[in-house]
Amino acid sequence: MSRFLLPRLTSLAPYEPGEQPLDRRYVKLNTNENPFPPSPKVLEALCPEAILRLNRYPDPAKRALRAALARAYGVEPENVFVGNGSDEVLGFAFMAYADEGRGVTYPAVSYGFYKVYAQLFRARANAVPLNADLTIPVGRFLRQGQMVALANPNAPTGLALPLDALEAIIRENADSVVLIDEAYIDFGGESCLPLLRRYDNLLIVRTFSKSRSLAGGRLGFALASRGIIEDLTRVCNSFHPYSVNALTLAAGVAAVEDEAYLRSCVEAVCAQREQSKRELRALGFAVTDSATNFLFAAPPRMSGEAYYRALKERGVLVRHFRSDELSAYVRITVGAPEEMRRLLQETRAILGQPQEELQTKEASS
Amino acid sequence: MSRFLLPRLTSLAPYEPGEQPLDRRYVKLNTNENPFPPSPKVLEALCPEAILRLNRYPDPAKRALRAALARAYGVEPENVFVGNGSDEVLGFAFMAYADEGRGVTYPAVSYGFYKVYAQLFRARANAVPLNADLTIPVGRFLRQGQMVALANPNAPTGLALPLDALEAIIRENADSVVLIDEAYIDFGGESCLPLLRRYDNLLIVRTFSKSRSLAGGRLGFALASRGIIEDLTRVCNSFHPYSVNALTLAAGVAAVEDEAYLRSCVEAVCAQREQSKRELRALGFAVTDSATNFLFAAPPRMSGEAYYRALKERGVLVRHFRSDELSAYVRITVGAPEEMRRLLQETRAILGQPQEELQTKEASS
Repeated sequence: MSRFLLPRLTSLAPYEPGEQPLDRRYVKLNTNENPFPPSPKVLEALCPEAILRLNRYPDPAKRALRAALARAYGVEPENVFVGNGSDEVLGFAFMAYADEGRGVTYPAVSYGFYKVYAQLFRARANAVPLNADLTIPVGRFLRQGQMVALANPNAPTGLALPLDALEAIIRENADSVVLIDEAYIDFGGESCLPLLRRYDNLLIVRTFSKSRSLAGGRLGFALASRGIIEDLTRVCNSFHPYSVNALTLAAGVAAVEDEAYLRSCVEAVCAQREQSKRELRALGFAVTDSATNFLFAAPPRMSGEAYYRALKERGVLVRHFRSDELSAYVRITVGAPEEMRRLLQETRAILGQPQEELQTKEASS
Repeated sequence: MSRFLLPRLTSLAPYEPGEQPLDRRYVKLNTNENPFPPSPKVLEALCPEAILRLNRYPDPAKRALRAALARAYGVEPENVFVGNGSDEVLGFAFMAYADEGRGVTYPAVSYGFYKVYAQLFRARANAVPLNADLTIPVGRFLRQGQMVALANPNAPTGLALPLDALEAIIRENADSVVLIDEAYIDFGGESCLPLLRRYDNLLIVRTFSKSRSLAGGRLGFALASRGIIEDLTRVCNSFHPYSVNALTLAAGVAAVEDEAYLRSCVEAVCAQREQSKRELRALGFAVTDSATNFLFAAPPRMSGEAYYRALKERGVLVRHFRSDELSAYVRITVGAPEEMRRLLQETRAILGQPQEELQTKEASS
C-alpha cells in the first residue's frame, strides 16, 4: 500500500474471491458458477447492432430491466434496484444503513463479504455464531436495533431457513432494514418475496450470477419497498449512476424473459446436486442438505484443507475456508455431469477407493 | 427515501447525469459521447464464444487488460488499475484518501462528481473558484496538505493546464495524492504520463467512454505508482472484486490494441470541433478554446438556459449547468457532421439568422 492510504483502511482484510489460476486447465468447482451457458436469448440480445451502439451511455435509470424484473416478480419498477453484481447492491445497502453509529448483525458463518463491508463502512458487527448443526439461531437475530443481513439459503452451509423464521426476524426488527440475500434461492428454500408488501424494512438481494448463468456479466438486483429502493438509488447516483453497462442491461432483460430456460438449468443442477450428495455420502462424507448450487461436504478421515489440496493437485478446484468452524469442510460447486464424474473419480483415488463402483453406477443410472 | 437511511445521507445531492429522455428522438449532444462506434476489433472480440462463456466469472485481477494498457502507456501492469467506468475509479480514490480527517481540494467549477464524492465520504472540501477567464488558479492548489483532484482538460470549460503548472501542483503536494482526471486528454492538452516515474503521489484517471467510444461498456482506468494502485485494489476488493464484466474487459483489450482507430476518431472529432467553434463564434457566441470533445459556448443576447431550452424544443439536446458562474454557457458535445449541421441550423433559427449562410458554407467547404 502507499503512504497516503487512510490509516483505518490499512488494516482492511479484503474479501478473497475464489482462485482463478491461469497456470493449467482445472475442473472449476470453486466459485458456484452455473455449468450452463446463458440463455440463447442473451446471445440474440448481444447482437452487432447493440455492440456498435456502445459509444452511447447506458440508461442510468435501467428502466427496461427494472420493468422486466417487476413483471417477473409481480412488483412495481419502483420496487426494483439494479446493480453491477449483487456484491455492489450489498455494498450500497451497507453504505446506506450502517456506519460507526449503527451496526449490523449477521451470522458469523455466512457470505464473507458482510464482515468486509462492516469494516469498510466502520460498522460495529454483531457476528452471531451458528448452532452446532450449522443452522442459524433465529432467536439471536430478533430486536437487534440495527441492520440485519442474512443469506437464505446460507453460504457456505447451503442450509435454508423456513419462511416463518425469516418473517419473525423481519417483524421483530421493524425499525431496521433486514437484508435477505437470496443469491441461491432459485435452487431451493422459500423466498421472502411474498412478505414484500407487508414489511417496508425487508430488502431482498438477488443475483444473475448463479441460476441465470451471467456471472461474467455482473448483474444483481434488489426488491424492496419504494423507500429502500430510493435510498439505494441515491447512494448509487452519488457513486456512479451508469453503474451497469449497456450489454449487461440487455442480457438481463433477455435472461429474465426466458423463464423456461432458467427452470431447465435449475432442474438439471438440482438433480445433479442430489445425485452427487448421495455419492459423496456413500463415500463417507458428511454433506449438508443443500438448497443451493453447491455442496458443503466434509471428507472422511482427512481435513477439508488436505482434501482441497489433493483435489487441486489432480486438477479439480473446490473452495476451502480456513476458519475453525469450517475447516472440516469444502464447498463444491455443482458442475456439469462430466465435471462431477471427474470430482468423484479423483475423490475415490484420494480416499484409496476402487474406481469400479463409479463405472457400475454410471451403467445403472 | 426510507425512514432507515443514515441521517447524514439524507442531505446528499447526487450527481445528475445528462438527461436521457425516451419521449422523442433527439440529436444528443449532452453527454460527451463519441459519435463513432467502437473499433471493429471490439465487435470481433465480443463474439458468440465470449457471450456463451458469461456463466463464468470475469478475471477479478483484470490481468489481460492491465497488461494491454501497460504496453500501450509504457508502464508495468502493477501501475494500472481498471474499474467500472472512471467514475468508479474516482470514487475508490476518494474512498481511499479522503474522509472527515483529510479533506480534498478541487476547482469549484469542474467535474460535478468531486463535490458529491467529498460529501459521500464526509471529506471537508476546499472548492477553489476559477479565475475570471475560467482558467484554474494554479497558485491556490499548492501545499494543500490533503488530496487534490483536477480535471485536465477541465470540464465543462474545456481548458487545459500546461504540464509545468500541473507538475508544480504535484511537486508542491508531495505528501498527498494529486489526482489528475484525464478523461478528455486524447482530444488535447498535455498528459501527466511523463511525470509518473518521478512522482509517487500522482494518480492519473482515464476513461474508455470518450476517445475510445465505449461509454456503454463502462470502463475506466488509473495509472499511478505501485503503492497507489495497491490502495485502489484494496478498496475495490473490499467492495466488489469482480467489478468489470467479462465482455467489457475483452472490449477494452481490443480497443486499446487498435491505436489507429483511436487516432482516426480523435482527428475527426477535433477537426469538427474546430469547425463548429468557428461557426458558433461567427454567430456571436463566446466559445472557449476547448481541448476536449465538447464546446463550452455562451450564446449572444440570451441566457445559456434559454438557448438550451430552445434547442431542446427543436430536438437538439445540449447540457446546461445551473450554477451562477456557468449560467451564460451550454456544453455542446462535438457530434457527427450531420448532427453539428443540425445544431447550427437550429441555432440560426433560434437567433433569427438566415439559413442561407449555412448552405453557402456547405457548398464552399
